[in-house]
Amino acid sequence: MRSDPPPTQPDQFGSGLSILPGGTRYEIPDEATIAADFAQLVERADWHRRDGRQIAVVQGLGFVGSAVAAVLANARDSEGRPRYFVLGVDLPTAHGCWKVARLNEGRVPIAASDQDLSRLVHLGVRETANLCATVSEAAYGLADVIVVDVELGATSADGKIEVETDGFDRAIRSIGRHMQPDALIVVETTVPVGFTERSIVPVLRAERTARGIKSEPCVAHAYERVMPGPRYVESVRAFWRTFAGIDEVSAARARAFLESFVDTSRFPLAELSDTTSSELAKLLENSYRAANIALIHEWTLLAERLGVNLFDVLDSIRVRAGTHDNIRFPGFGVGGYCLTKDSLLAQWGAEHLFGVDDVLLAQTLRAVQINSLMPLHTLDLIRELVDGDLGGKRVAVCGISYLPDVADTRNSPAELLIDCLIAAGADVRAHDPLLDAWPERPAVPLARDLHFCFTWADVVVLAVRHSCYRDISFANWGDRGGRPYIVDSVNVLADEIAAEIRTAGCRLLGVGKGHWRKARYHVAS
Amino acid sequence: MRSDPPPTQPDQFGSGLSILPGGTRYEIPDEATIAADFAQLVERADWHRRDGRQIAVVQGLGFVGSAVAAVLANARDSEGRPRYFVLGVDLPTAHGCWKVARLNEGRVPIAASDQDLSRLVHLGVRETANLCATVSEAAYGLADVIVVDVELGATSADGKIEVETDGFDRAIRSIGRHMQPDALIVVETTVPVGFTERSIVPVLRAERTARGIKSEPCVAHAYERVMPGPRYVESVRAFWRTFAGIDEVSAARARAFLESFVDTSRFPLAELSDTTSSELAKLLENSYRAANIALIHEWTLLAERLGVNLFDVLDSIRVRAGTHDNIRFPGFGVGGYCLTKDSLLAQWGAEHLFGVDDVLLAQTLRAVQINSLMPLHTLDLIRELVDGDLGGKRVAVCGISYLPDVADTRNSPAELLIDCLIAAGADVRAHDPLLDAWPERPAVPLARDLHFCFTWADVVVLAVRHSCYRDISFANWGDRGGRPYIVDSVNVLADEIAAEIRTAGCRLLGVGKGHWRKARYHVAS
Repeated sequence: MRSDPPPTQPDQFGSGLSILPGGTRYEIPDEATIAADFAQLVERADWHRRDGRQIAVVQGLGFVGSAVAAVLANARDSEGRPRYFVLGVDLPTAHGCWKVARLNEGRVPIAASDQDLSRLVHLGVRETANLCATVSEAAYGLADVIVVDVELGATSADGKIEVETDGFDRAIRSIGRHMQPDALIVVETTVPVGFTERSIVPVLRAERTARGIKSEPCVAHAYERVMPGPRYVESVRAFWRTFAGIDEVSAARARAFLESFVDTSRFPLAELSDTTSSELAKLLENSYRAANIALIHEWTLLAERLGVNLFDVLDSIRVRAGTHDNIRFPGFGVGGYCLTKDSLLAQWGAEHLFGVDDVLLAQTLRAVQINSLMPLHTLDLIRELVDGDLGGKRVAVCGISYLPDVADTRNSPAELLIDCLIAAGADVRAHDPLLDAWPERPAVPLARDLHFCFTWADVVVLAVRHSCYRDISFANWGDRGGRPYIVDSVNVLADEIAAEIRTAGCRLLGVGKGHWRKARYHVAS
Repeated sequence: MRSDPPPTQPDQFGSGLSILPGGTRYEIPDEATIAADFAQLVERADWHRRDGRQIAVVQGLGFVGSAVAAVLANARDSEGRPRYFVLGVDLPTAHGCWKVARLNEGRVPIAASDQDLSRLVHLGVRETANLCATVSEAAYGLADVIVVDVELGATSADGKIEVETDGFDRAIRSIGRHMQPDALIVVETTVPVGFTERSIVPVLRAERTARGIKSEPCVAHAYERVMPGPRYVESVRAFWRTFAGIDEVSAARARAFLESFVDTSRFPLAELSDTTSSELAKLLENSYRAANIALIHEWTLLAERLGVNLFDVLDSIRVRAGTHDNIRFPGFGVGGYCLTKDSLLAQWGAEHLFGVDDVLLAQTLRAVQINSLMPLHTLDLIRELVDGDLGGKRVAVCGISYLPDVADTRNSPAELLIDCLIAAGADVRAHDPLLDAWPERPAVPLARDLHFCFTWADVVVLAVRHSCYRDISFANWGDRGGRPYIVDSVNVLADEIAAEIRTAGCRLLGVGKGHWRKARYHVAS
């Protein structure tokens, strides 16, 4: 091991502004600053390479890329030395720069509750100095392995699926323009079926041909299963991985790469025969989950009408391990970046990349649509409580992320509910203990104080199972002033709490809690 | 314990014929014979009651009732003595008498591969003499507990659901006419939501009122999860049970009854608050299963078109225990008595028993429909192999039950395939190692010899994963004569066997085996 300390990154960039959601402003560097930054990176990469390290570049510093970069920087060889010098790359734009700047400060770019992730980033940036970030696309030229974690979005309207390939294609082209001919590219992004072979490889080939590179690129698809939340880091380094290469060499190199940071003794790798299979695996596993949520939603509507507590029913079913323990629960809606779009990528890929126009994933696509409209059921419950008229009613929506105790607002189901409430004339405030800002709905006022919500509001909606909502005590409710109506859309209130609330004179409805309504009707009759 | 031996049943009945599928003929008893038989039963019941035993009557000796009767007869108290004198009751009809007669011979009425069940029946009838059967409905009057295992069918056509309540209602009325006022009735049958409270209880009440009984009946719904197959008996006495009573007394008595023969130390009972919840639980758990099968079917069609081996993909997904290990596999179709109809009972009950006409289980009902048409995909594969013309083609369909190594042909998916093949002019033979007859399609010739099928047929379809199909060796194929095309609809052929078959010059397609087709296309191109 070398005795001189590894070189570190410059502290800041040049000009322009990139603003972190919530406030902090970072300057967007100009070209000269980027070039100077890159010159420093070359020196650092050389130092690490001489010290026996491979250079790993992670493209995209979002929820996946930032965690993968941290885990890669923490990967150790048999002697306990870091395996990689890891460079995170994002775009020199308002959306990209703050991520790069935050990582270079030794902090996780995106909000994360997993302290392990914060620790790994700090360690990699500040102590082992083998982790840093840049907006310089020239960095791809330094890489032995390039990990693609760039988003690839999809939307559906009137049955027509649109896939946002432009940004992703640009990302792949930038790799092709700079990459070493024999660098390995590992695509972790969830892509349409066929996309690796029929879009990514041709794009790379074109860029490489323009540079006079005649060899075929080495490419694998190895989709991520990153789960933001308390086991964020573990979901990268200690979880099942599936992969496939576009040829045998690519597959073998991808296997070796995955083995370098995944605990494959506990979680052996699954290698599929081709990248289309790997792509389809990811799309199917998320579609399976989405379809099961949609199935339970229609049974939720039925159970509520029959006065059945669907949670009790599901508890009695889920004991059947191996056949029924994966069944889902009623809830408020589906958000995030996976279940809301992955099914679309399957149908789109079949049509646009294989020309298959006579196979329709009808149940799958309907499930995505049902899930996207789930919050309208909570809207119905609110309407029922206020006897139909939302005009001027004060509604507090508690929980605007889409996962308990995770600060992720992408495609949050709260968006639809709040849009509808506002359109119906309601006065809406949102509350979320994890968020200082709501990038997708900046105009919606965020209430800081949960107790304020309960005294201010006519109706309080509990829309995410954040732990602070579970721990609310309503025992001395009468002393607090307001007696709002409450909709528990996510079964966060325990039965005893619900009883307290009723005792305090509040009306209460819950998604999947048909017996609550039955009890109320019983009293009324 | 009494020292004189327990009395046994008479050996035979009077007149008429009841014919066991496959051949054996039994006489249908006349009224005098039934009355004489009942007089003997009264004596036997008295003897057992004096010996400290309760009298349990099981109504319906089909796949569920015969297993439940055997397990009840085998239930022991803390001193190892039988808890119950068990009377199985079926109708004095062509369909009912052979079941009664077979049980009284000490044999399982319906075909079963579980030797444990045969042993229990033999033991109960021939050794402990606390198990017998009768066609006398007066037997209900002897019971402390009556277990209802009568079928309740449902069908759907053009979106209209028909539930065959008549036979079931007659069964409940016959109980009401004869039961002791305080006997416990435990309904194990899967029924529409609300049926126990809103149909069974009113029917019982009417019959009891006509007899001058003023008290309310004791009724519980405790649905069965019986699985014909190698763990048939275990599925009755060592598996999870869910139940609910129509009132607290019914629930408490049902709990005590279930605890008397179910291993509740390993499988604690789940008690729900009302019978509607219990009914819904059963319908939901089977609908969940059916929906997952339907979901995979549409991904099967996609995977085949893309040349993806969906089984490999699913193996890579199912490692995710707790979230994805319940995902289903591609297959030939769905048969049996549960997944084909239970979803219908939910929709029908909501409409007809609760007046709910604005909640549609759309995904659920579509799934049942998709599953019912699944065999048409195998038909498509056959057509592809014979270049579209089925006229005069010899097709052997191997496997006409709906479960591997289980002799149950109820609603077998083979029916639809074979009906379509015959309609298209094909010459069809069926093969099943477990069956001597196919009650639902008596006109279809059954081939006894599997090797004959392979030499006779132009196309062989493997439609059930019976173990004998797995063990076929094609190593010396060339010596055997025929080289049929083969469709493996249930992934029963291992990859090595498939390779042998191809080597022998046969064309082979498989449901979910897109890579087989891809390989063939590859050779052709």
